[in-house]
Formats: sequence, structure tokens, C-alpha cells
Amino acid sequence: MGEPAIDVVGIGNAIVDIIARCDDGFLSSRELSKGHMALIDAAAAEALYGAMGPAVEISGGSAANTCAGVASLGGKAGFIGRVAEDEFGRVFTHDIRSIGVAYATPPANDGAPTARSLILVTGDGERTMNTFLGASVELGEAELDPVLITGARITYLEGYLFDPPGAQAAFHEAARMAAEAGREVALSLSDAFCVGRHRAAFRALIQGGVELLFANEEEITMLYEVDSFDEAVAAVRAECRTAALTRGAKGSVVVTSSGLVEIPVEPVDEVVDTTGAGDLYAAGFLYGHARGLDSKTCGKLGSLAAAEIIGHLGARPETPLAQLARQKGLIS
Amino acid sequence: MGEPAIDVVGIGNAIVDIIARCDDGFLSSRELSKGHMALIDAAAAEALYGAMGPAVEISGGSAANTCAGVASLGGKAGFIGRVAEDEFGRVFTHDIRSIGVAYATPPANDGAPTARSLILVTGDGERTMNTFLGASVELGEAELDPVLITGARITYLEGYLFDPPGAQAAFHEAARMAAEAGREVALSLSDAFCVGRHRAAFRALIQGGVELLFANEEEITMLYEVDSFDEAVAAVRAECRTAALTRGAKGSVVVTSSGLVEIPVEPVDEVVDTTGAGDLYAAGFLYGHARGLDSKTCGKLGSLAAAEIIGHLGARPETPLAQLARQKGLIS
Repeated sequence: MGEPAIDVVGIGNAIVDIIARCDDGFLSSRELSKGHMALIDAAAAEALYGAMGPAVEISGGSAANTCAGVASLGGKAGFIGRVAEDEFGRVFTHDIRSIGVAYATPPANDGAPTARSLILVTGDGERTMNTFLGASVELGEAELDPVLITGARITYLEGYLFDPPGAQAAFHEAARMAAEAGREVALSLSDAFCVGRHRAAFRALIQGGVELLFANEEEITMLYEVDSFDEAVAAVRAECRTAALTRGAKGSVVVTSSGLVEIPVEPVDEVVDTTGAGDLYAAGFLYGHARGLDSKTCGKLGSLAAAEIIGHLGARPETPLAQLARQKGLIS
Repeated sequence: MGEPAIDVVGIGNAIVDIIARCDDGFLSSRELSKGHMALIDAAAAEALYGAMGPAVEISGGSAANTCAGVASLGGKAGFIGRVAEDEFGRVFTHDIRSIGVAYATPPANDGAPTARSLILVTGDGERTMNTFLGASVELGEAELDPVLITGARITYLEGYLFDPPGAQAAFHEAARMAAEAGREVALSLSDAFCVGRHRAAFRALIQGGVELLFANEEEITMLYEVDSFDEAVAAVRAECRTAALTRGAKGSVVVTSSGLVEIPVEPVDEVVDTTGAGDLYAAGFLYGHARGLDSKTCGKLGSLAAAEIIGHLGARPETPLAQLARQKGLIS
């Protein structure tokens, strides 16, 4: 295999976010778990949409947001995920391609419509997601593009995609393809509830060859069924070469065999919407990692990208991240 | 006829806005006239969308934005406009209903998809619109809901709707229905190019019984083919009981038989996107007018609503306008 043509290929759900503001009462009256993602079916999606306030549609999907972030930093990214042949599918395809991400998964022309996530943003900027997976559910080994995967320094797997049946098998196959080509495999745990649903499967995948793991504090303690962050750090260190663990306002910690590196958060004027904060942290880190930067710089790039995204509605960058990173002297 | 059940019914294009940022070079390389609206066909819409950057989708349509603004001020509003039975149609329907606007125009289940406007926002906040009218084109007399029109204090007609064939006839019929029920008719000129395309038709409608006219400086001078704002003021005063004329950063002027009232602009921190500034000015003015407030207060409500909308992407209010108007002491 020659020099990789791209930095990161992401594999994940292809989703359009439908974002509306609400108050805490709306969440509690519907028993929605604040800050988490719940899977809903078509009927529940219709009912919730009918009850929500006026909304804005912005392309989303966790790994897709990460790929958009890598491209915004000036990196080369590709994405694999499944939309339907419909308007939201065209919107998703437009947005990810127009930021420069290579995306060529064929749209499905039968079955469920393009996936959508009904995202409720409360006054504190927290986002509560209700995702109808639609066409994204059927992603499988057939959609894995070997040229993208073997041509990428890092294959980045979105934990949310553990929910659709068949996608787990595709993840194992993608990891195998990447490893065979001498590339790295990265994984995001995505959501604590998602970890709870698929703990054993995540552990098996990590042990099978994930070099770089992304998780927040809640997810990593849930994965190892431990009570403290320190115990989780010890556990992940034994299984994974590098783990980038985010802790919200407390910043992040990069765990490697050579030790722990603590990264502060990048200050923001106002937290408008935390949707995509983890995705963009991963974008910054992956970009730095693919370019051979040290852990501290990778983490700072992650914090910077996360800070940009929480300052506005939606999980795709509004300001070119490369420009922000150059201003901070993180990249040249 | 009894007491009107609603304040304002708007009749206009039912459009989803697709908003992306661009630089001036993008506009000039495609010969797009900055600050104006151009009509484009399906092929041109596809080509332009393919060339645009990542976008955000937010419900729009000029009169629809105005109706959303009236509702956001606490007024009762209705809307008549035509979408298709597709995802953008469902998005439009959701957004306008969820803010409390009565909307029941049946979606078209054959023919063109829901209308969309590709809106390019430059660094100075100016918006350049390229509209594919789609299903909106076929709006005609059949869609006029007599209960909404005769039950509204004001029937508000969107000038952009003069472009689709058949809609002009519907406007005359709507104006007739409103007048017969003893209601007021208001009209927005929408766009200078639109005025240039339909000058005689606009003049005929105004002379036929428009009590309240909305226009900006460019539109009103274009309508009367005069060189100065003062000449336009004199001309409109002879034809229309009240004209609310906006002048961008110079504020607005309300022209009535009893004289001119000048209204300053409401200061804003940063002009992010001027899309909807005129629509929301009309919303504030119409709300005040329907509630019997004086011209100065109507104009101030217009300025306040316009200021909210230009501070963020999209032409629908993010903050309840009633709350802002109460803070300013404009409404109780």
C-alpha cells in the first residue's frame, strides 16, 4: 500500500438534524432523557415533530459531522453512510460534498426515507436527540468502499451505528480492511445509553484492534461498569493505544501508554447548542493525529473545533476551522 | 360580518429557504444581482445548489415570514400558500403551524415539488435569493379560503406572488372578498425587479383598493418611475391611505394623509443575515395596525421585529417577539 490519499474516512449514520428550541418541561412531560439520544420509530417521530416548535434543518450524523470538521480544518476526509433518494437525502449529500468530503454511498431508492434526528435544545444549550434511523438502518458490508477505507490513514467508526442490525458486522469488516492495509482504526462510543445497549460488542471491537477511542466520562465509565473516571482511565489504558476522553467543561484527557495529557476547554462567549461538541472534538483530534501532531496539540485542536460548534445552532462548522486553528498557532 | 377572528391573513409563496454563505466573487461570477430575488427553473436550481457551500434549511416565504412574525408578537394569523406533498412541504407546514399560524391550504400531490429559495448570504449580511417556485406557482382562486379572508382584519398580499400566472387573478378576488366583508387589504411590493416585471398590475391593484402598502425605497421609486424618494412619497400618498416605506439603515417613513412619521431603526449588534428584514417589519406594523395602534408605534414594532431577524440566519423569529416588544414597552 502506498501513501494514504486521505486523512480520515468516517462510517456512520447519514442524518439530517431537525433542531428546535424547547424548555425543560417539554422534555420531562415526554419523558425524554436530557442530553441523550433515543431511537424512535416513524410514528413516534411524526408525533414528536407535530408537538415541537418551529425548526431548522441542518445536515448532521455524528461521524459525518466529524468528517465535515476534518475537511474544515483543511484535511482530506471521506464518508460512508446511507441516505434515501429523497429531499433530505439530497440535502445531506449536498452539504457533506460541498465542504469537500468524498461521499459516494449510493442512495437507497426503496424503503424508509432518509434518517432524521429531532433535536431539542434547551436554554442551557443541552441537546436531546430523538433519531429515526430510516434508510441509515440498512448500512452493511455492501456499502463499504474499499478504496476509501484502504486509502485513509484512519477509519473512524461511529458508535451510534451499532444500533442498526448488520452495521456491527460491517464495522468488523471495515476494521479488518483498514488493518490489512496497515491503517489505524478509531471508534467513538457516541452515547452512554448506546454503550449500555451494546457494551459487549463495543468491548469486542476495541479488543480486536481499535487504536484510538473517543468517549466522554459517562460513556467510558458505562463501558467498563466502573464508578469513577480514574478506574475507567486504568481500564481503557490496558485495552487501547490512545483514548481521548472528554469531560465537558472540565476539558479532556488523552490517555496513552506514556501517560495522561490534560487539555483545557477553549472558552466560548455563549453555549448556544452543544449538538456536535463531541463530534467536532474528534474532528480536531483526528486531523492532528493523521498529520502526526502530538497528543496535546491534537487535544487542543479538538477543543477549538468543539468551541466553534457550540456557539451556534447545528453541528457543522460555520467558520472555517483551519482559519481558527491558524489564528491559535495550532497549525501552520 | 362579526368581529374578525384573526388579525392578519397572508397570501404568498410557500417556500423553504436553503441558506448558505458565499463571497461577493461567487455572486459576480454567476451574474447574480446582490440583494435581489431572481426566479430560476429546476435545472438552474440544481446547478446553483451543486455549486453552493454547505447550507441550512429554514422555512421562509415572504408573507409566510410576516405571518410567523405576527404570531410571534401574540397576534392571530392565517396563511394561504401552496406546497407539494413532500418533505419540504411537511417542513413548511410544520414550522408555520407550530408557531400558531392557521394554515390549511391542501398540499399538491402531483407536479412540481415544494418551492425553495437558494439564498446566498455575503459577509455584509446581504442576501441574494434564487427562487424555484415549484408547487407555489399554481396557487389560484381555488386555494382562497373565504373563512380565513373574511375573518381577518387585514388580508396581506405578497408581491412576489405576482410572478406565478393565475395568482394575480387570485389577488384581485381575495381583495374583493376582503373588501366585501369590510376588511382591509395590504400589499407588499417585495422586490424592485418584481415591481419592474409587474408595474402596471401592481398599480391597478393598489388603485383598486389597497389601504396599506409596504415597500422599500428602491421598490417605491421603481413603481412610480421616479428618481427621488420624495417624489415617490407624493405619488403613493395620492393612491394609498397608508404606506410604510423602509429605507434600510435610515429607518422607515409612514406616509398617511395626515403627514409623514419617521421611524428610526432598532440598533443591532451584528447584521448576520438581512433575509426577512422587510417581512418582519411588515409583521410588526401589521400587528400594531390590526390592534389599532398609532403609526409611530406600528413602525417601531416593525423596526423591532426586523432587528431581531437580521441578528441570525433565517427569516423566522428565534426569540418570541412579544417578549421583546413588552421589554420595549410597545405592547402590554
